[in-house]
Amino acid sequence: MKRIVFYVSDGTGLTSEILGHAMLTQFPTLQYDRLTLPYIQDRESAQRAVIKINEAAESYNTTPIVFSTLVKAEHRELINQSKGFVLDAFAAFLEPLEKELGVRSSLKVGQSHAIGNPETYRARIEAVHFALESDDGGSRARHYEKADIILVGLARTGKTPTSLYLALQFGLFAANYPISEKDFTSNTLPKSLAGYENKLFGLHIDADRLAATREKLQPNTDYSSPERCYLETNGAESFFLAHNIKYLNVTELSVEEISTRILAATSLKRRLQ
Amino acid sequence: MKRIVFYVSDGTGLTSEILGHAMLTQFPTLQYDRLTLPYIQDRESAQRAVIKINEAAESYNTTPIVFSTLVKAEHRELINQSKGFVLDAFAAFLEPLEKELGVRSSLKVGQSHAIGNPETYRARIEAVHFALESDDGGSRARHYEKADIILVGLARTGKTPTSLYLALQFGLFAANYPISEKDFTSNTLPKSLAGYENKLFGLHIDADRLAATREKLQPNTDYSSPERCYLETNGAESFFLAHNIKYLNVTELSVEEISTRILAATSLKRRLQ
Repeated sequence: MKRIVFYVSDGTGLTSEILGHAMLTQFPTLQYDRLTLPYIQDRESAQRAVIKINEAAESYNTTPIVFSTLVKAEHRELINQSKGFVLDAFAAFLEPLEKELGVRSSLKVGQSHAIGNPETYRARIEAVHFALESDDGGSRARHYEKADIILVGLARTGKTPTSLYLALQFGLFAANYPISEKDFTSNTLPKSLAGYENKLFGLHIDADRLAATREKLQPNTDYSSPERCYLETNGAESFFLAHNIKYLNVTELSVEEISTRILAATSLKRRLQ
Repeated sequence: MKRIVFYVSDGTGLTSEILGHAMLTQFPTLQYDRLTLPYIQDRESAQRAVIKINEAAESYNTTPIVFSTLVKAEHRELINQSKGFVLDAFAAFLEPLEKELGVRSSLKVGQSHAIGNPETYRARIEAVHFALESDDGGSRARHYEKADIILVGLARTGKTPTSLYLALQFGLFAANYPISEKDFTSNTLPKSLAGYENKLFGLHIDADRLAATREKLQPNTDYSSPERCYLETNGAESFFLAHNIKYLNVTELSVEEISTRILAATSLKRRLQ
């Protein structure tokens, strides 16, 4: 039986989605469709959401699961009257938190992903532009003196997505430098990395996974051959060891996992709170 | 009085942070420091977390607020014995959800931001690389036939961060095209956009905000002058209207808000669930 899952929110819906996703990954056998209903900020849109939920209850012939993050109790109550099974984060946590803090909540909608502090927000956008300008150290201008961290690794080890994620999520200035065979044969660090030893962090990957990824991009080439990938991953690991560079095996890790493990393994302080 | 907030998780800590952030933005007068304790996956690390929370209770001379997402009840119970005020999402939602679904949860830790489906995950990484390769339509190779959406707007309206966010969060292929004064004087669309009318989406911004942003980057230049920004934003809006391009005023919006509003305003289907 397939279920339908709704994410109902007075803002972007992202908090509700992330919360729901965390719960639903605990039920890996569950088949479901999903629908996000964002920006529910008045009675009318809440009523339209109820209609959608009730229609889905008919179509799927089962109770829709509804994850919601609605600040206004009045809108939550409307959603609660739908045919959905409703789990609301504010309903669960806001009142206990008010008691503990001894402060009433502001009940302002759509705050979670709003700009907040404009200075902090600007820093985040600058971090994204920095990551772009500093991507692929081989071919572009370098700004390593401004970098919080320089990711070092072979092509297709996730350096670029990780740099961007570090920028978007944490406001960190992440550059990256692709290493290749010519770097392995030298006893010294590539010239452009010299002086930045304390900012280097290696991304390592298993040879077979690297080969599989490259094979998708350039099938039947030397670049994607198992032998070449074996030599490169061995060379990269020796490079990290020789130059005393902390590194992480990213083979089984998502970009979020790589990024948070880097934070945990270094003394990097995030700029976004 | 300053509070200390902990985010405790058996995975990256991101779900816990986002949930906590959603709650804490409801208390805008609250001053607090924050600490994330990720990858709490065994008794020992849970006990270390308890020690940290208790030490913080001493240092801050007040009860720490603890947002946690711990799948294992055994580890939650340890954290509950700390001196923190603990709000756990799994404790609140997992049991009701088990009942509703009639399925026991898998109780597997660290699932929420794990790779999940490798094919979907690969699509996401490809989307990030696509956004990078398609950034700044003026100077690089274009792949608009592969694009799900082409963001159109002046320099510094958030096209690039939004493209990247759409890629990372939703797996969408987002290109972008910077418009400038030469585009406003023509009656036809820029040549490279022709044929892709249905993929265009405009980002618009108020002149004073644009001037303020540019002033930070290039102070006292024509580029950042109020007059120039006024002419450009007016030209851009006329351009959107003349070519019947849907657009959004992003002046007060975060990247998350821009991205989710684009999804709501178009029929784009996200690739990541």
